[in-house]
Amino acid sequence: MDAIRITGATRLYAIVGDPIAQVRSPEVFTERFATTGVDAVLVPAHVPADRVDEVVPALMQLGNLEGLLVTVPFKVRMLRFAQRLGNTAKCVGALNALRREADGSWTGEMFDGEGFVRGAERKGERLPGRRVALFGAGGAGSAIAYALAEAGVQSIAIIDPQAGRAAALVEKLRVAFPGCALMAATAKPADVDMVVNASPVGMKAGDGLPGDIGALSVDTLVGDVVILATPTPLIEYATRAGCSWVNGRDMHAGQVDALIAFLAQRNA
Amino acid sequence: MDAIRITGATRLYAIVGDPIAQVRSPEVFTERFATTGVDAVLVPAHVPADRVDEVVPALMQLGNLEGLLVTVPFKVRMLRFAQRLGNTAKCVGALNALRREADGSWTGEMFDGEGFVRGAERKGERLPGRRVALFGAGGAGSAIAYALAEAGVQSIAIIDPQAGRAAALVEKLRVAFPGCALMAATAKPADVDMVVNASPVGMKAGDGLPGDIGALSVDTLVGDVVILATPTPLIEYATRAGCSWVNGRDMHAGQVDALIAFLAQRNA
Repeated sequence: MDAIRITGATRLYAIVGDPIAQVRSPEVFTERFATTGVDAVLVPAHVPADRVDEVVPALMQLGNLEGLLVTVPFKVRMLRFAQRLGNTAKCVGALNALRREADGSWTGEMFDGEGFVRGAERKGERLPGRRVALFGAGGAGSAIAYALAEAGVQSIAIIDPQAGRAAALVEKLRVAFPGCALMAATAKPADVDMVVNASPVGMKAGDGLPGDIGALSVDTLVGDVVILATPTPLIEYATRAGCSWVNGRDMHAGQVDALIAFLAQRNA
Repeated sequence: MDAIRITGATRLYAIVGDPIAQVRSPEVFTERFATTGVDAVLVPAHVPADRVDEVVPALMQLGNLEGLLVTVPFKVRMLRFAQRLGNTAKCVGALNALRREADGSWTGEMFDGEGFVRGAERKGERLPGRRVALFGAGGAGSAIAYALAEAGVQSIAIIDPQAGRAAALVEKLRVAFPGCALMAATAKPADVDMVVNASPVGMKAGDGLPGDIGALSVDTLVGDVVILATPTPLIEYATRAGCSWVNGRDMHAGQVDALIAFLAQRNA
C-alpha cells in the first residue's frame, strides 16, 4: 500500500455523524485513495445532532471538499442539502453519500441497499428469483428492499412492527418495480428462500431473532445488517441450519466500490 | 516515521485559507503527529474569502476539531472567533493559530513573527542591531515587526501601500518596544542591512519586487514570507547579490515547534 500523505492540495471527503468514533470509512476510503493514487483523504466529522442545519451547509462550502458520507442520525435529515437525488435516495427518502458536481451543486444517493446486494454477490450468492422475507422498513430496510427488487428477486414480504411503514414502503416500491411481488406482512411467509433482518433487533445484548423464522432449508440465504463483534442471533441461527449468510460487514464492504464510483463521477 | 492512519476516532486540525493548495502545514503537522504517536491529522480547508464569517464558526462546532491554523487572508479577520488572545496576537491584531480549550472556548495566538526569527536563527543569522526595511503591515508584517523588535533589531522602517496601516502599526509597537526605532516609510531607506517582504507581492506569476530595493550589500539579510515552489523575485534578487536569505519555508519550519506546543497546551 502507498503511504498516506496530506498536503495543501489534498482533496477532502468527510463522514458526518453523531457519534463518529465508531465509523470505519475514514480508514477504508483513505487507504483506497492512497493505493489508487488519488490525492484525497476521508476524515471523520463529528457534527452534533442539534447543529446539523448550521454546520453541514457551512462544511459544504469548503472549496476543497469533494463529497460527504452520512451516517446515523443524519441519513434522512440530510436529504435537504442535496439539489439532486439518485433514484434510490428519491424512492427510499434517505441518503448516505453526497458529491459536489462541477457546477458546485450537490447530488445525493443511498448505497446501503446496493452494498447489501453486492456483499451477497461477492460471496457468490445469486439473488434473481429469490422469494424474500425482510424484517424492518426503516432507512436500511427501505434501501435493501429497493436494491433487492432491482436485483430481480421474485417477491418481498416486508414485516415491520409499524404496519403502516411496511405498507407505505410497498406502495412506493410497487411504482418503481411492477415486476416484483411486494407485500406488507405480519410474519415470515412459509415459502421464502431468503430472510433478511434490516431491523435493529440483534444490536442489544439478549436480543433474539427479529421474528418467528421457523425451520430454514439449507438453500435459504440469510442476511443481517446488524454489526456486532460476534455473530448476531440470526446469523448464528443460519449457521446452525447450514445456510449461507451476508452480514453488516459484508454490506459495508459491498458498498465501498459503489461509493467510490459515485464520488468520482462528477457531472458538469 | 510511523504510518499515517485515519480512523473514526482520529482528532482533526485544519488550516484555513484562500487559496489553500500552497500550504505546507498539512504535511508537516500530520507527519509530526504520526511520529509522536498523536492520533490526529491536519487537513487543508479552503474557506472562500467571502464566506469566512459563516464557514469558520460552523467548522469550530465540529466535536472532533481540536484546533485551527490560519493563513492568508484571514489572519486579522479571524480574531473575532477567539474568546482569548495571547500577547502577540493582542498587540499585532492578528493570529495564525486557534485552539479549543477544555471548556469549549477558543484561544488564539500569532506565531509568524516568532517563526521568522527562529527560522533566521536556525540558519545562523544574527538579528540584534539590524536596521530593517519591512514591506507589508498586514498580519504577517505586524507579527514579524513585533518579533524583530523583541529580538533586538535597532530600527524598523515599515512600508505599506496603505500608509495609515504602517503608521498604526508603528504606534502600537512603540508602546511595547520603546528601545527600537520604528517608523512608517514610503520607500526603503538607504542605510538598512535587512530587507523583509511580508506583503503578498511575489505570490502571483509576473509579480516583481515588493518595492524599490536598489543595490544590496552582501551583508544584507533578506527575508520573504511568500511561499512558492521556485524562489520568489526578492529571494532571487538576494541570491544574485550574494546575500543570505530567509524564506517562507524557513519561517514555517521555525514556528512548527511553537505551534505544536501551543496546540497541545489545553487549558481547563
